[in-house]
Amino acid sequence: MKTPSSLEELIEALRCLPGVGPKSAQRMAFHLLQRDHPGARRLGVALDQALSLVHHCERCNNFTEETVCELCRSPRRDASLLCVVETPADLLMMEQSQAYNGHYFVLMGRLSPLDGIGPKDIHLDRLVKRALDGVVKETVLATNFTAEGEATAHFIGELLMPRGIQVSRIARGLPVGGELEHVDSGTLAQAVIERRPA
Amino acid sequence: MKTPSSLEELIEALRCLPGVGPKSAQRMAFHLLQRDHPGARRLGVALDQALSLVHHCERCNNFTEETVCELCRSPRRDASLLCVVETPADLLMMEQSQAYNGHYFVLMGRLSPLDGIGPKDIHLDRLVKRALDGVVKETVLATNFTAEGEATAHFIGELLMPRGIQVSRIARGLPVGGELEHVDSGTLAQAVIERRPA
Repeated sequence: MKTPSSLEELIEALRCLPGVGPKSAQRMAFHLLQRDHPGARRLGVALDQALSLVHHCERCNNFTEETVCELCRSPRRDASLLCVVETPADLLMMEQSQAYNGHYFVLMGRLSPLDGIGPKDIHLDRLVKRALDGVVKETVLATNFTAEGEATAHFIGELLMPRGIQVSRIARGLPVGGELEHVDSGTLAQAVIERRPA
Repeated sequence: MKTPSSLEELIEALRCLPGVGPKSAQRMAFHLLQRDHPGARRLGVALDQALSLVHHCERCNNFTEETVCELCRSPRRDASLLCVVETPADLLMMEQSQAYNGHYFVLMGRLSPLDGIGPKDIHLDRLVKRALDGVVKETVLATNFTAEGEATAHFIGELLMPRGIQVSRIARGLPVGGELEHVDSGTLAQAVIERRPA
């Protein structure tokens, strides 16, 4: 009959997770309450901690707990290369491919006029400043090969090239319509090696 | 490169949710931190609230915030009928079928020797006491028609019938191997109406 209100609220709250519908949310809530109190407690604390500690790196815009993240501070990275990716997951895939040793800029999204996501929302003003720091020689565009990713890459190219920055695009070794997050490291490595002037 | 530790912990903590693997957990964490701080905060609070408020009803073993749940206290329900279901989700499906107006006992599981789940773990001692309260005339077994659900129903039947309690099983209107949670209300209603002596 009536689900207790705090349980109902938990089910509703779980639906903020991407890909979780009403049935999954119910199953998750029952699972946590019936079998995994420690897991639920841990998740609550982790949410709290992450919300208060994690913010964006001043330089690359990736998630970090510091002002400037470890990767941006590293002296081992090639500061003349700047790679533009859509998400932190894409950055991780780039790192796993081991074909790139430069710096990054994480857009945290892509241009998407239909969703109301414009240049400001993906921090292109900050990207331009970052690319014009005098050290960066080449900007590697590694947005997805989806329609929106391609449009984003094109837009960034148009923005940077008139300002005298060399811009390249990772090779279309990725299947058309594919997403970086789901590709194997080998294919991605090939695509980095075969990058060509935009 | 390095994911911030509080973000890593959030990803790890999200994996306690059933059906959430490493990739989904990562996507969920990024989504919450990037786009849904209010949702994340709400989820944290909801987990906290549910953990402290929700426990099991003394009579039916379902989730409740009270000692005895609303359904068990209701004078409108037929106290001579006791329906045994595996999970709270199954109870909700029974209610939606509108073919049953008695009381419930929620096992919160099923017999599963391979997973080490025995009679004690699904509270069969409490079920026997509940069925022998002198008011219950018939116990309706509505466990799933899976191998484990069938075994559980058989076991409960063997337990209750020698003690003089009438035991019935909802009709096999459900497809063999099917689960209550995923069936349509009409089929389930038919199965309740066609229940037969065990």
